[in-house]
Amino acid sequence: MKKHNFSAGPSILPRQVFEQAAAGVLDLSGSGLSILEISHRSNAFEEILDSTKQLVRSLLKLSDSYHVLFLSGGASSQFFMVPMNLLNPPETACYIDSGAWSLKAIKEAGHFGKISVLASSKDRQYAYIPKKYTVPDMATYLHITSNNTISGTQYHQWPESKPVLVADMSSDIFSRPLDIKPFGLIYAGAQKNMGPAGTTLVIIRDDLLGRVSREIPTMLNYQTHVSKNSMFNTPPVFPIYVTMLNLQWLHKQGGLEAAGRRNQEKARIIYDEVDRNSMFLGLADAEDRSLMNATFVLKDSALESDFLEACSAAGCEGVKGHRSIGGIRASIYNAMGKESVSVLADVMKEFEQKFG
Amino acid sequence: MKKHNFSAGPSILPRQVFEQAAAGVLDLSGSGLSILEISHRSNAFEEILDSTKQLVRSLLKLSDSYHVLFLSGGASSQFFMVPMNLLNPPETACYIDSGAWSLKAIKEAGHFGKISVLASSKDRQYAYIPKKYTVPDMATYLHITSNNTISGTQYHQWPESKPVLVADMSSDIFSRPLDIKPFGLIYAGAQKNMGPAGTTLVIIRDDLLGRVSREIPTMLNYQTHVSKNSMFNTPPVFPIYVTMLNLQWLHKQGGLEAAGRRNQEKARIIYDEVDRNSMFLGLADAEDRSLMNATFVLKDSALESDFLEACSAAGCEGVKGHRSIGGIRASIYNAMGKESVSVLADVMKEFEQKFG
Repeated sequence: MKKHNFSAGPSILPRQVFEQAAAGVLDLSGSGLSILEISHRSNAFEEILDSTKQLVRSLLKLSDSYHVLFLSGGASSQFFMVPMNLLNPPETACYIDSGAWSLKAIKEAGHFGKISVLASSKDRQYAYIPKKYTVPDMATYLHITSNNTISGTQYHQWPESKPVLVADMSSDIFSRPLDIKPFGLIYAGAQKNMGPAGTTLVIIRDDLLGRVSREIPTMLNYQTHVSKNSMFNTPPVFPIYVTMLNLQWLHKQGGLEAAGRRNQEKARIIYDEVDRNSMFLGLADAEDRSLMNATFVLKDSALESDFLEACSAAGCEGVKGHRSIGGIRASIYNAMGKESVSVLADVMKEFEQKFG
Repeated sequence: MKKHNFSAGPSILPRQVFEQAAAGVLDLSGSGLSILEISHRSNAFEEILDSTKQLVRSLLKLSDSYHVLFLSGGASSQFFMVPMNLLNPPETACYIDSGAWSLKAIKEAGHFGKISVLASSKDRQYAYIPKKYTVPDMATYLHITSNNTISGTQYHQWPESKPVLVADMSSDIFSRPLDIKPFGLIYAGAQKNMGPAGTTLVIIRDDLLGRVSREIPTMLNYQTHVSKNSMFNTPPVFPIYVTMLNLQWLHKQGGLEAAGRRNQEKARIIYDEVDRNSMFLGLADAEDRSLMNATFVLKDSALESDFLEACSAAGCEGVKGHRSIGGIRASIYNAMGKESVSVLADVMKEFEQKFG
């Protein structure tokens, strides 16, 4: 039976990427060597790294004033690296609290300077994106989490802000067109639309480098990785290789405009069914619904395990909501086909016929 | 033509590990899902993580007082995490300088307290392991680099030290039996004898946790990863998976005692040829020679490029010395067969016949 992987991350990647990656593990482009055993200083890997960087630049239409880095440690490491590298006391950094990941970023930033949380949607279990606030002109940056995997919300319009935007885009980068101009720094763990777990993309505008006076360990300083082209130490070779394969696939599929259209269509299939079906209730406000993670609950929560069983019987995996809030979550990243989303919508229809 | 990969790291792994890893990329144990797309919270990955941990424990015969962590960021991140987590001002940490990697560890430690470099082999281009020094009883720890990939030296006896040993074992962990008792903390980037690039093993003794008063970002605190079993955030799933496959292979080959014997034999083949052959000169003192990285030069350096060509023609890849010192370096990690080492020794013999 075909499996439909609705996991929130690590998550589905295109079948052809798995096939190419497996081939590279056995023999990288006819070299007689595995991608897992080549030196990171080899020409073969330098070409992979350069290609991956160029794909990021081309897909996001980055100007020369932005640097593209492949680090490790996940977005969780960026939670502290951002303020460590950008925030000079007594400056203030502003944060918007749109969920658990925002809160973690806020917590880590507190070690490095004054943090002002301008708005939060905690009052309604993060079911919406906060919108009513004013960003002080003097703030060093405004930090947002562009997509919230747990509650299923997403920014569909960037905040008005004179200070530069810093965004955790772990769960929606490369899922729609992006105008880079308001952003000074974007970071993203790879394991949703970018690649497998194990590398973290950081895009940083040149003027934000070297702006603090504190001592920073070499590995935690963005300048180190800019000056060494992400090769200060051995980078995560295989996760970068698979990222390249995946971004090549994305490029061939028409880039971010086409991806954005496909993701809109897929989200419509699932949200239309949530709204139509008498058994389910969407969790996020309609205008802030995520195109990546559709969250909903059964009106009768006693039926949840039956629904999860029905999903499983149809090959739909990973639809259980995040352990902190429960319910149902269907993550429908770039690589998920419309037909898989329709399978889940059909399960919901059949569930209504049986239990409604 | 068969390739013999003498690369210093990332480096050779067993062929069957590549085959199993490629199979897992296509379909993990018949699950219908790729290892690259499964959730790190899935049972499948929890089993992989637990197995990998158990293999580390069993191969190294670790008692319950040691924790086993799989982090990311390479040994380069441990250079600062070690003193950040262990060194409480005004305490002193002692370091032995046996090469470039030691120096990097010393440099990063300087951010966090008083560092005393007890001995260095810089006076003779790091061609030996420093031995004449006394470790002050009051030091918090003594840091060593157990194997030095650039100069080709290795500790064959641990220093006498009342303070606990901390070791960077990136390039020789799992290559020989280890008595864990003198060690408080061991760290190792995976990309030599452990697995592919992308994860870092940290073994830490329980009593060294939580010993400093400074504020530590959550991701940089060993306690975080101990309490969350290396799952505070998404771990590098695939590098850990391949580490498991590789350690399973090592276990089946007879564990560390057998690996140590094989590595002795392989090193003897190459060093015997270096010493016998009139064209070459070993770089490291005989008693400190590394069993992992054999370094030597051509007595007539003008012939170096001819020798590199001869190696290449025989399928021997990655034998060029580290860019900082040049010469020849043959890295002969666990997965390299005796027959590959013999191929290189034969190239050296033939080179002598042709150019000697």
